[in-house]
Amino acid sequence: MGFFITFEGVEGCGKTTQLRLLKERLQAAGEKVVATREPGGCPIADQMRAILLDAKNSAITPLAELLLYAAARAQHVQEVIAPALKRGETVLCDRFTDATLAYQGHGRELDLTVIGQLNGLATAGVQPALTVLIDCPVEIGLARALSRIEATTGAREERFELESVRFHERVRAGYLALAAAQPERFVIVDGSGDVAATEKRMLAALAKRLPAATQAALGA
Amino acid sequence: MGFFITFEGVEGCGKTTQLRLLKERLQAAGEKVVATREPGGCPIADQMRAILLDAKNSAITPLAELLLYAAARAQHVQEVIAPALKRGETVLCDRFTDATLAYQGHGRELDLTVIGQLNGLATAGVQPALTVLIDCPVEIGLARALSRIEATTGAREERFELESVRFHERVRAGYLALAAAQPERFVIVDGSGDVAATEKRMLAALAKRLPAATQAALGA
Repeated sequence: MGFFITFEGVEGCGKTTQLRLLKERLQAAGEKVVATREPGGCPIADQMRAILLDAKNSAITPLAELLLYAAARAQHVQEVIAPALKRGETVLCDRFTDATLAYQGHGRELDLTVIGQLNGLATAGVQPALTVLIDCPVEIGLARALSRIEATTGAREERFELESVRFHERVRAGYLALAAAQPERFVIVDGSGDVAATEKRMLAALAKRLPAATQAALGA
Repeated sequence: MGFFITFEGVEGCGKTTQLRLLKERLQAAGEKVVATREPGGCPIADQMRAILLDAKNSAITPLAELLLYAAARAQHVQEVIAPALKRGETVLCDRFTDATLAYQGHGRELDLTVIGQLNGLATAGVQPALTVLIDCPVEIGLARALSRIEATTGAREERFELESVRFHERVRAGYLALAAAQPERFVIVDGSGDVAATEKRMLAALAKRLPAATQAALGA
């Protein structure tokens, strides 16, 4: 079985960039890597992603949103993640089950037990071996996310950026609580600095947390 | 609270036509009626419907499909059905929770207990007072459905019509088993004849099953 790493954090924390940097290092070291993301990650789940992230769909109810994330995740796990792990490849995923607990549970305050059950159903037990939580204050993250949206033409991924700062504070606190509850799975990386500083911190934090062969290949 | 009636049956059984005929009779008798359908029934759920019914999405996994139906249902119940019932209106819905039990449970052979739990979650307990099951042999229904598809330009609702006859036989048997288990909620109507014959049978079967005021208004 391959090694499964998820990247989590609030909007604009830098996880997508850090995932790409780690992917490039692993590939340069000869690892077979599948980089993917949620919601989406395959054509059918991407159609669900389009519904979830479209600002025009702000009338979606929290429960419908939760079930739609689970549907997209079920397709993504069965079509992309589980087959790649079975082939022995390293899978890096931008957001996964913890995002649902942090955003729908802590953010929207839906029942964490129901979310946990839906996560279990959708993933059929496929769980990350390691979760990199890039943590930063929400003001820093939102400022980055908003400048990214302004710089993009036709940006459609803005629904969560429009939530209140208080919502994002709950999400951040939720992530930190999840990490505190499962220290053996999480590594927390300070993402408040620039890209290079965060990458340096991430590589230091990953030392001794990756499989031995990967560790050696990275020279970490 | 209004009165909630669902219409169920295999492809081509005639339930959509019979729903429309009953709606017209109720409206002519002065009732406020909301006629809706699943999957879909409101703009956000219709976007999910488009994913579910598109023949290009045949790679959707049974689990993702099940969760996507639940997501669409949650939105539809909260946005359309529950508010209409609260206003005291009669709601007629083309397919509902029994369709998921019949198609995903009996047809695709997914766990009926899991489906029941997801139905309960998605509907938050909103249940039909009456379910009209239009029953007919699958060969008759599929022949009608296929001629409908051929007569329509740009038809996209064909994914289920492409399933095997054996699949539809399981769906029909599933519906009949659901009706046998809950005779107080179901009325079974023979849909093997023409539209007028089926309507006559439906009205006879509904006699004494509708609220007294509705019954009187229909002159049934």
